[in-house]
Amino acid sequence: MRLHNYFRSSASFRVRIALELKGLGYEYIPVHIARGDHKKEPYAALSADTLVPLLEVDGEKLSQSMAIIEYLDEKHPEPALLPPDAVGRAKVRALAQSIACEIHPLNNLRVLKYLVRELKVDEEAKNTWYRHWCREGLEAFERQLEQLPASTYCYGSTPTLADCCLVPQIFNARRFNVNLEGLPRTMAAFDACMALPAFHKAQPSACPDNEA
Amino acid sequence: MRLHNYFRSSASFRVRIALELKGLGYEYIPVHIARGDHKKEPYAALSADTLVPLLEVDGEKLSQSMAIIEYLDEKHPEPALLPPDAVGRAKVRALAQSIACEIHPLNNLRVLKYLVRELKVDEEAKNTWYRHWCREGLEAFERQLEQLPASTYCYGSTPTLADCCLVPQIFNARRFNVNLEGLPRTMAAFDACMALPAFHKAQPSACPDNEA
Repeated sequence: MRLHNYFRSSASFRVRIALELKGLGYEYIPVHIARGDHKKEPYAALSADTLVPLLEVDGEKLSQSMAIIEYLDEKHPEPALLPPDAVGRAKVRALAQSIACEIHPLNNLRVLKYLVRELKVDEEAKNTWYRHWCREGLEAFERQLEQLPASTYCYGSTPTLADCCLVPQIFNARRFNVNLEGLPRTMAAFDACMALPAFHKAQPSACPDNEA
Repeated sequence: MRLHNYFRSSASFRVRIALELKGLGYEYIPVHIARGDHKKEPYAALSADTLVPLLEVDGEKLSQSMAIIEYLDEKHPEPALLPPDAVGRAKVRALAQSIACEIHPLNNLRVLKYLVRELKVDEEAKNTWYRHWCREGLEAFERQLEQLPASTYCYGSTPTLADCCLVPQIFNARRFNVNLEGLPRTMAAFDACMALPAFHKAQPSACPDNEA
């Protein structure tokens, strides 16, 4: 298994967490997004969407982090990253998508670059943009957790796809000094995750291409 | 089943397509997003994330369009909206997420409002923003389709979750005059979908709250 990814990409981080939780070994192939290597050969010839992560597995090239994690969960069912019941799966997928569709797309590198280069937004307004979408999204995430039974992680007593998405988002939020007060369920789930070796091993500072 | 949604919301449109494809009846509850009704009572008390769509079904409130569609597919397996094999599912989910995570989040109403109100972006720059992300995303979508075997719809000979996401995005692209030239596989899948009654019945102009 070969994972093409970047230490700071939170979509990549999600997949690394899933691989670690399942104890699956993989070859780490760095793609330097900040330098634009995803848009150049050889990566651009490999990746149809020129995004990371991309997982080469079972003779296939798989893209999109949530799709990759569901694939891994289907092929390697233990430990499960989705609940056994349809309602539980719907809740966990919705939590994951609340981050992957509502927060992260607005705050990734290519969008921040567009704000600065095309819209001539200054540093302060760019950071305000970042914090606005991240905070608003995490408040919505918290309200969703409040409607669920008490749990150790985002949903239930084991980490799920939702935690794979939450943890990288909190890492990013901290990098941009987003206010994380008043999110008790969210931050308790984050802390529970970070007490697990799998999340530690997957984090940016543990990656071979880490520059921090 | 009660679907809280808005005629012009493309995430709502995705779920309406899935319901129609499966022949499932539902009560249509309009939420006027452009007027901000999703942020006010009574909807704000019902919806944790104050987004549409929200499906009330089996005593549950389900959010996030892709999660809702997967739930419907699990509970009402025919006709299937995901392929029977893990690789096929991964490809279809990745196509769906290419739209739902890479294009649509940048172009929805709250983001366009932020550009205008907070960043003082003018109408032309706002429309350029819209077209940029939509065109770039559809080109990436096309490259993904090119790597797949010939097919009537996005993936295979029946509509899938990927088509549920593609069609509303093309409707939006046309509203904003996005260039749709040079996307042969994408537009062929769109045309194949629009030849089916389910897609027609789900479209904005067929909705009870349509204002067009």
